[in-house]
Amino acid sequence: MASFNILRAAAAELYVTDLERSRHFYVDVLGFVETEKTKEALYLRGVEEFLHHSLVLRKGPRPALGAISFRLASADELPKAEAFFREKGLPFRWQEGDGVKGDSLLTVDPMGFPVEYFFEMAHVASELREFHHHRGGAPMRLDHFNLQVPDVEEAYRWYRQALGFRLSEYTETDDRPPRLWAAWLFRKPNVHDVALMQGPKTRLHHVGFWVPEPSRILAACDILAAAGHHHAIERGPGRHGISNAFFLYLRDPDGHRIEFYTGDYSTLDPDLPPRGWKLHDPRRQTYWGAPAPQSWFEEGTDILES
Amino acid sequence: MASFNILRAAAAELYVTDLERSRHFYVDVLGFVETEKTKEALYLRGVEEFLHHSLVLRKGPRPALGAISFRLASADELPKAEAFFREKGLPFRWQEGDGVKGDSLLTVDPMGFPVEYFFEMAHVASELREFHHHRGGAPMRLDHFNLQVPDVEEAYRWYRQALGFRLSEYTETDDRPPRLWAAWLFRKPNVHDVALMQGPKTRLHHVGFWVPEPSRILAACDILAAAGHHHAIERGPGRHGISNAFFLYLRDPDGHRIEFYTGDYSTLDPDLPPRGWKLHDPRRQTYWGAPAPQSWFEEGTDILES
Amino acid sequence: MASFNILRAAAAELYVTDLERSRHFYVDVLGFVETEKTKEALYLRGVEEFLHHSLVLRKGPRPALGAISFRLASADELPKAEAFFREKGLPFRWQEGDGVKGDSLLTVDPMGFPVEYFFEMAHVASELREFHHHRGGAPMRLDHFNLQVPDVEEAYRWYRQALGFRLSEYTETDDRPPRLWAAWLFRKPNVHDVALMQGPKTRLHHVGFWVPEPSRILAACDILAAAGHHHAIERGPGRHGISNAFFLYLRDPDGHRIEFYTGDYSTLDPDLPPRGWKLHDPRRQTYWGAPAPQSWFEEGTDILES
Amino acid sequence: MASFNILRAAAAELYVTDLERSRHFYVDVLGFVETEKTKEALYLRGVEEFLHHSLVLRKGPRPALGAISFRLASADELPKAEAFFREKGLPFRWQEGDGVKGDSLLTVDPMGFPVEYFFEMAHVASELREFHHHRGGAPMRLDHFNLQVPDVEEAYRWYRQALGFRLSEYTETDDRPPRLWAAWLFRKPNVHDVALMQGPKTRLHHVGFWVPEPSRILAACDILAAAGHHHAIERGPGRHGISNAFFLYLRDPDGHRIEFYTGDYSTLDPDLPPRGWKLHDPRRQTYWGAPAPQSWFEEGTDILES
Repeated sequence: MASFNILRAAAAELYVTDLERSRHFYVDVLGFVETEKTKEALYLRGVEEFLHHSLVLRKGPRPALGAISFRLASADELPKAEAFFREKGLPFRWQEGDGVKGDSLLTVDPMGFPVEYFFEMAHVASELREFHHHRGGAPMRLDHFNLQVPDVEEAYRWYRQALGFRLSEYTETDDRPPRLWAAWLFRKPNVHDVALMQGPKTRLHHVGFWVPEPSRILAACDILAAAGHHHAIERGPGRHGISNAFFLYLRDPDGHRIEFYTGDYSTLDPDLPPRGWKLHDPRRQTYWGAPAPQSWFEEGTDILES
Repeated sequence: MASFNILRAAAAELYVTDLERSRHFYVDVLGFVETEKTKEALYLRGVEEFLHHSLVLRKGPRPALGAISFRLASADELPKAEAFFREKGLPFRWQEGDGVKGDSLLTVDPMGFPVEYFFEMAHVASELREFHHHRGGAPMRLDHFNLQVPDVEEAYRWYRQALGFRLSEYTETDDRPPRLWAAWLFRKPNVHDVALMQGPKTRLHHVGFWVPEPSRILAACDILAAAGHHHAIERGPGRHGISNAFFLYLRDPDGHRIEFYTGDYSTLDPDLPPRGWKLHDPRRQTYWGAPAPQSWFEEGTDILES
Repeated sequence: MASFNILRAAAAELYVTDLERSRHFYVDVLGFVETEKTKEALYLRGVEEFLHHSLVLRKGPRPALGAISFRLASADELPKAEAFFREKGLPFRWQEGDGVKGDSLLTVDPMGFPVEYFFEMAHVASELREFHHHRGGAPMRLDHFNLQVPDVEEAYRWYRQALGFRLSEYTETDDRPPRLWAAWLFRKPNVHDVALMQGPKTRLHHVGFWVPEPSRILAACDILAAAGHHHAIERGPGRHGISNAFFLYLRDPDGHRIEFYTGDYSTLDPDLPPRGWKLHDPRRQTYWGAPAPQSWFEEGTDILES
Repeated sequence: MASFNILRAAAAELYVTDLERSRHFYVDVLGFVETEKTKEALYLRGVEEFLHHSLVLRKGPRPALGAISFRLASADELPKAEAFFREKGLPFRWQEGDGVKGDSLLTVDPMGFPVEYFFEMAHVASELREFHHHRGGAPMRLDHFNLQVPDVEEAYRWYRQALGFRLSEYTETDDRPPRLWAAWLFRKPNVHDVALMQGPKTRLHHVGFWVPEPSRILAACDILAAAGHHHAIERGPGRHGISNAFFLYLRDPDGHRIEFYTGDYSTLDPDLPPRGWKLHDPRRQTYWGAPAPQSWFEEGTDILES
């Protein structure tokens, strides 16, 4: 049983080298909503979101992951989280509220990921029904993080046992006995808040955003190509076997990977049986059989060196 | 605070006068999956569902609502539900498990609705990825019930305070002060498990099923028309203002109303502000402005007389 | 046999009372491309079109039809058209080329419609692949005119015998013998360049524009509603029985009716049998069975009084 | 000027090794309509087509192209075609009408392709509006042939000058001066009836069929994968730069390549400027930038050895 109650994957902080270039890509082309822009950072959200931001692009000397953020179920969960990290002997520090976000706890998990927990965030108006303002893929909300780790079993135990995530799907190797190669884990009741995937090191693979429907993903591809950003399309569009979602993977101007994702299924029922896939089955990744390009496996976003 | 924990809207039981005719409509034309058929009843589910059924069509002398069913969060919640109904002095009786469904509690709520609570149900294989078997609208899962009541305030208090539902959206009259005319209430985190709507009497207005995307709703219309069932299309397709969902309303061969529904939004965040609409605003019902036909307001499914 | 060779329906000229208001509606909301704007007129085209315009909105004291224009197969057909109208004793006059459009022949047909014939028009760049500039419904090209006439048989003979149009579909009354109530006639090989429909007087019913696919029509509805123009949505979206096209009817700020239309079929084969429908069959208009609103039958655009 | 009038690309004859296996693939999975089946051949058509067939699968010892067929504008064009081939000194022979197809002329063109010309073919009922019978991609009609030839210039001159095709788009090499690498040529007024593409030998590259809209192509992919035919998906779905069409390439059980194709543009206007692309531009093939797989360039259907 987890000692504190995580509501959902909520925000990512990415370092980028040129804020204007990123603003053009995310806002003008992809259709993220710009909540606020300072000299140092750009605060973005999906068209559905009423919280201040789900994506922070921060000016930095090189591309990197700042932190991933989970929203807790209430403000009362924050001290419980602190007690939990203290008991585990893991690093953490408080970040004082700044008017946009309330007090939050910045931690480092056993795999080395910088993970922030918060509850309070300023409200803004949802743009959900402002269809005349929607552009590009009209991303609605942050859906999940995909994390690469050298030891999936270890990361799986952390998320499952320590943090109380449930398992929806998983990939196992063809070894006997099989080893866990990837896992899809959730708090909110769809396929995942976090996917863990075998990788050469601990790093962010991608951040997934929910989009309204497949036709909007096709429109995003057309728009990217017309605007000269066809190089940003890394994989897809296609249907995942795992999750059953329709997807598109993009690389932003700094190489950060974003997924447009839509149409998975409900995992609310506590007796939903997890679904296993074999690593050799090409349909697990793309149900239509197309293999992912090598870059998809080999490249990712490193954690900011502190 | 509710005394027992409801997971979600889970199943509806409707009386129909001709099982074969209903099977043709729901299975062959609309694309529901047939789990089981007996001389007395037809057990249907959506393509995503791994529980035995979400719609029971039972042979009867005239069209009627048998019961609406909610799934509880666990089997442990059943005795709590019993205690709750006993304490309230409301009618209830136990139904013994039959191999398909575990023990369940059949109750009558203060508005007079027959409401069943259960947790255990036999598992079957999900047809989610069996796209070559999908037909019609490929309904994925039961999403919600819409209930007409003469006193919306009373029903609202019951669902909100006694059963622990949260409010996502509501319609109020243009009176001063305004009166509550309709309310969208949820346990699972999308717009509703139950909508309450002002009506001439206590009856079922419709059962809503989630479909994959708007293009599937257009396909369902084409198929219905080609198969000679264009009279079944009562309203839509269109976009709701309330819920932002894309919708279609159908009348089955007995006049029961079914909604195909897709694309609302997440209500998971506890601080999501409920959204209010005025009764005179045509965009609340159909964002595109088209009024609902009179039949949509005036007709519904009566509760089975016992 | 026709005496001159008409290529296709090519342009419409409509008088509007407020050019800025019309520009906002057609360009910002619906997604027409603005080729040129003067104090007196706005020249619009679809995103696919490489000719200067297919829709001219001209400032006038009241809404009216200026003329409908057909493009001829070549410049050599213009003198043949002149000879034809001279021989028939019908009114015509030459309009001198103005740099945008070459010399053209403005005629009045036997029903009283002002009809222009031209071949030359200045080229501009097609916006077809400029997806990042597409807005609203992204209308691609003018597809057809729909004309109301008191005597459909007479108009049918004119278009069929005098002008060499072919018949794709028609509606006939339930009388014995049946009378022709509406006819779909074409020069270019899809369902129509001109539809003739029974009406109280000679007037323009609507101008139809081809859009890329049904999802774009749904997007246009969402955008219209969000921008406060839901009152502009008169009928649809839906599927026509006649033509099999997916459609939406809009009323512009002056009441002119525009159709977004997509997905009919090829009429190229000379032995394609025309398809007849009975007036009492609701699926002829909307395959899904929904009747058109009264305004759709009763209202239209009058011809400019000269 | 051509000496006889070709209406459009009309039918293809392919040799397959297992008729039942092919029937399952084309009819059950992809959604072609079966008009007739004999021990020796399967006659298929698209859902829109009212002629007996557009695809003949004939039993043979190995996969091969029998012939491609063009429909002439009328029966009167057949003797003109005979005179033309006689004058050119090219091989031809008459095939007597068989009740399904009228008399036809089987020729061999200068590149070595077996090409049939016909006009008369038996009518059958169009399934266009029978949406409840549509399956898979619901192919509507044959759209085009894509032919590989060692000398594109030669083939281009034949189609353009001898047969009277017009040019819509072309690819040229980066050489100075550039050489013609591929050409899209049409008789019916959309982008092509025939594409010519540089290849190692004279062979059929693919047959293209028009489908209703992109969402139907996505559905076809899902259905292919679910039915275990994901290996049949060779390339796409995606948007072509050339033609602007949305596409999917499939390989049938014998390796014949079929394209599902939708959403190009009108080429009716005689002054439409042909559009040129450079061979190094990845967006010409797939506007979104993804390269075609090697098999797409290297494999094709050989001509039946006689």
